Amino acid sequence: MKVIIIGGVAAGMSAASKLKRLKEDTEIIVYEKGSDLSYGACGMPYFISDVIKEEASLIARTKDEFLKRGINVYTQHEVIKVDTDQKQLSIKDLENNTIIYDTYDKLIIATGASAIRLPVEGKTLKGIHTLKTLEDARSLKQRLQDETVQKIAVIGGGFIGLEVVESIVESGKKAILIEREPQLMPQYDADIMAPITTMLARAGVEIHLGETVKAYQGDETVSRIKTDKRTLSVDLVIEAIGVKPDTGFLEDSDIKRHDNGAVIVDKQLRTNLEDIYAAGDCATVYHRLKDSFTAYVPLGTHANKAGRIIAENIAGNPITFPGVIGSNHLKCLQYEIAKTGLSEKEAEALDLAFDTVMVKAANQAGYYPDAKPVHIKLTFERHTHRLLGCQMVGEKGVALRINIMATAIQAGMDAQTFSNLDLAYAPPFSPVWDPLQVATNQIK
Amino acid sequence: MKVIIIGGVAAGMSAASKLKRLKEDTEIIVYEKGSDLSYGACGMPYFISDVIKEEASLIARTKDEFLKRGINVYTQHEVIKVDTDQKQLSIKDLENNTIIYDTYDKLIIATGASAIRLPVEGKTLKGIHTLKTLEDARSLKQRLQDETVQKIAVIGGGFIGLEVVESIVESGKKAILIEREPQLMPQYDADIMAPITTMLARAGVEIHLGETVKAYQGDETVSRIKTDKRTLSVDLVIEAIGVKPDTGFLEDSDIKRHDNGAVIVDKQLRTNLEDIYAAGDCATVYHRLKDSFTAYVPLGTHANKAGRIIAENIAGNPITFPGVIGSNHLKCLQYEIAKTGLSEKEAEALDLAFDTVMVKAANQAGYYPDAKPVHIKLTFERHTHRLLGCQMVGEKGVALRINIMATAIQAGMDAQTFSNLDLAYAPPFSPVWDPLQVATNQIK
Repeated sequence: MKVIIIGGVAAGMSAASKLKRLKEDTEIIVYEKGSDLSYGACGMPYFISDVIKEEASLIARTKDEFLKRGINVYTQHEVIKVDTDQKQLSIKDLENNTIIYDTYDKLIIATGASAIRLPVEGKTLKGIHTLKTLEDARSLKQRLQDETVQKIAVIGGGFIGLEVVESIVESGKKAILIEREPQLMPQYDADIMAPITTMLARAGVEIHLGETVKAYQGDETVSRIKTDKRTLSVDLVIEAIGVKPDTGFLEDSDIKRHDNGAVIVDKQLRTNLEDIYAAGDCATVYHRLKDSFTAYVPLGTHANKAGRIIAENIAGNPITFPGVIGSNHLKCLQYEIAKTGLSEKEAEALDLAFDTVMVKAANQAGYYPDAKPVHIKLTFERHTHRLLGCQMVGEKGVALRINIMATAIQAGMDAQTFSNLDLAYAPPFSPVWDPLQVATNQIK
Repeated sequence: MKVIIIGGVAAGMSAASKLKRLKEDTEIIVYEKGSDLSYGACGMPYFISDVIKEEASLIARTKDEFLKRGINVYTQHEVIKVDTDQKQLSIKDLENNTIIYDTYDKLIIATGASAIRLPVEGKTLKGIHTLKTLEDARSLKQRLQDETVQKIAVIGGGFIGLEVVESIVESGKKAILIEREPQLMPQYDADIMAPITTMLARAGVEIHLGETVKAYQGDETVSRIKTDKRTLSVDLVIEAIGVKPDTGFLEDSDIKRHDNGAVIVDKQLRTNLEDIYAAGDCATVYHRLKDSFTAYVPLGTHANKAGRIIAENIAGNPITFPGVIGSNHLKCLQYEIAKTGLSEKEAEALDLAFDTVMVKAANQAGYYPDAKPVHIKLTFERHTHRLLGCQMVGEKGVALRINIMATAIQAGMDAQTFSNLDLAYAPPFSPVWDPLQVATNQIK
């Protein structure tokens, strides 16, 4: 059996490695259009800030390691067309600028996504960066180390935006954060994010919410941003407004895609066409709470899980991916921000019968030194009290604690069952009632 | 309705407070034989080490606060007899040395437990302490602040023992730890505890495992411990070998007790006699994985939950306590130690068909600075792969992470379901596969 994988980062290489372990005699070929393989994209915000010094730290496995395992990897090879009838790919060798052809028995599409760019005047000026590929990270890190670069605008207050703002603040430079929505982290509810906005402002970040970039201006290099409200003087711009699936090469194929271009897959990560799978940032994912197959949640953790499950399926074990519920967390300076399941606005958009509670509780026994408040907002079904979502912010005990609630939600637990869970307790780590149980105790 | 509660610490006062909130017109009377109410006993190891400076920090609520809420509290009042036919109590007023009588409609037994003392020669010498009551903590704190007290023996390497050893090490004094079993934390498996023994030895703790105290010697004050292997010179002794339920006053009653004296209760925390409930360190608790009503797990977190559930039941809401699975964690110097569910030896004792896996994984992305190894041991049902237990030790990301697995075990999850859980991921907090999922991925 010959398996071709298009894309050599998270989903692609986890599928390749797992498949080789499950069925050693499988012929596996990986075509990757870039130069880098299997890198930890989520580490890039820490690489540009020099918290992570060496680029090599981000590389999980090198090309040589894959070759030694019998996985044939071709970098700088861009698949430009898929003929699903003939099971044939057209591939552009970017180094030699030639076209080659190859055929597969099974195909895994794992091409990932690209940074969305603002389509505004001046967008081609120098000094406007994104942070999606390792190549992006290299060039951005170099620019941030330039002493003349002091005022840095970050466009977009989502995950990458806040992680990048953290690194700018920690480097002692000036961060200007511009977000189109009237709040940071638009996936979250506005009320739970309020402490973060306050904290960033106190840390010296200039924050512009509900403000839209209209144009970049400058002489070769960007030096001003015109928004709908003002003109800002800047030395560098980092756009972090989201990503779009890299699936343009499928345009002529019959492979079904969602509105945003993401390949639509079922719970076995199969596309609508036989023998073709897709996973990672180029594909949709099943959302358990929305009961939707067209959710787009481009995160490395799903890519790795989905890659393994594709390998199991190709190896003959028909395992399903139960889907996601939207769990995430991030560090932003001294704060931890976390969410799982549905926010209030997501539950509203789904027209669910739900309610919310919001509590503030200490992360640890109040008498143990350095306790910090944790803000918790829960979403739950009105009549059954089934837990639907949790959002948390605080300085301690937030990031790992969200996964307790993530597990409960995926188990379909209601508030009372959660309140009675036997959770470990000791004063340095938790009050006698875990803050999450303080919150579920409020649901009556 | 008149409710009498015997015992005014965790279970008793949480029942009192909750019942007053649920049914304000209930007459509630609390008899507590000690002087202190509603204190955070779990904080005492940090109080004796002066990490917590003020005794008042440990008091959740004062007598006056309870009185203001309409809860009639009598301290220094010891219930010495229960006549369950007449629903009458005999109570000794310890200040005035008189006997009074009172009658109840509903009775809650929440008398807690006392420290078990070693029944050896020299046990009445001065300088031998325990740490069960706030009174114990006061006198121990005073002794530890004495400059002439330098060599301190701790008898018992369980929770309290290790927390006390931590405080001795941090105070710069010499800790000598003596444990009868051949390992620390005998609830845990020996293999998972090995890194802790090494760490404590490196921190200068003199550890004697598999060694039994035979006698205390000294002139008025203890100055030597004779064990079955040697004689140790000491300035102070702290016994931390466990607790026994304070239920001697029930000896003449028909209330059913377990071998160790703990009052046996059902899932509604009812004893075998109508209108009599029990909770906290004086009672058994239902163990979900052992399917046993005679488990004895004296922890504040269960006491608080059970107290509330008794209040609900007395108020007419027949809520059940689903029971415990043995979740616990503790801090010991730079290490976090945690367990939930069944250890290998517990599963063996129950004669279950089970297997184990043991892994070492990083607490966070390997490329993010200061990642630390987490040692994880899982116990699971052999044929179904249902998760039964988890033990973890490590310097970071252990204490809160155990509660993810505790939730999964209580939900009855199997290994594959756990591996596919959508858990939040970001490099400062977790690798792309959570260490717990690295462990469940090993179960095939």
